[in-house]
Amino acid sequence: MRVLGIDPSSRATGYGVLESENQDYIVLAYGAIKPSAKAALPEKLLDIKSGIAGLIALHRPDEIAVENPFLAKNTKTALILGQVRGAVLIAVAEAGLSLFEYSPLEIKKAVTGYGQAEKEQVGTMIRTLLGIEDAAMGEDAADALACALCHLNTRLFLRMVEESKIR
Amino acid sequence: MRVLGIDPSSRATGYGVLESENQDYIVLAYGAIKPSAKAALPEKLLDIKSGIAGLIALHRPDEIAVENPFLAKNTKTALILGQVRGAVLIAVAEAGLSLFEYSPLEIKKAVTGYGQAEKEQVGTMIRTLLGIEDAAMGEDAADALACALCHLNTRLFLRMVEESKIR
Repeated sequence: MRVLGIDPSSRATGYGVLESENQDYIVLAYGAIKPSAKAALPEKLLDIKSGIAGLIALHRPDEIAVENPFLAKNTKTALILGQVRGAVLIAVAEAGLSLFEYSPLEIKKAVTGYGQAEKEQVGTMIRTLLGIEDAAMGEDAADALACALCHLNTRLFLRMVEESKIR
Repeated sequence: MRVLGIDPSSRATGYGVLESENQDYIVLAYGAIKPSAKAALPEKLLDIKSGIAGLIALHRPDEIAVENPFLAKNTKTALILGQVRGAVLIAVAEAGLSLFEYSPLEIKKAVTGYGQAEKEQVGTMIRTLLGIEDAAMGEDAADALACALCHLNTRLFLRMVEESKIR
């Protein structure tokens, strides 16, 4: 099972590709899509959409996991974030892949065991859990990997429940 | 000059294609894109993007005018509207067309002469100004035509200013 995790943001949309093999996780890629600050809004959104489409073509994930705040701070940030989410979701639909969404609380809980964890704690735990020694890994990429990890854990949990039912 | 006016909304994204010839306006098309209520969110957004792309291919507008509320009622509606805007803006960027945005106030003022006009007044004025006798024309289509008309008026006004400078 290979998952592309995405943390949408207008400044830098983080991504992380994670593969589960038995009980182990393999990090295949991580980074952030940063549209040119000078570009007009439609071009910025197209850059994000094309970037996600490129990652899907490159890494052929089985499923997509996206961080969804569900609630935003204010209407202005919600409108901007909604636009970026639109760009991401269209790339997912064009690739015909299944989308899974997780709240920041679910993601933090899955990675640190605590829903109210700080941003830095998520980064530290992701580095530890996935054995990433790159100190320059950005927050956006760490959040996207955390989202992918959250999805793989959920999948694993659901499979265990299924198997226990069969027994 | 041919303009595609768009009024983004998750339920029904209105559109209207308007052409200016001398001082006259010709209505080429109007309607609304309504994604299937049963479809998942990514598919709904892709339907809207594909619908706009189809209209652009069909009517070959020179420019696109989109209604932008800039401010939304609450963060939930802002997030949803942002997603739909993202879908519309990506279709515009993929077609390589120029985007012009107008607030509801600017559009109402251009059509009725009054920024606080009611929805029905906009519909009535659009029918009168463009000679549309179709009583079944929806609110979304009327709003999109109003947005296109607002853009053509702005263009005409700017050209008149330019010409008066040359003299």
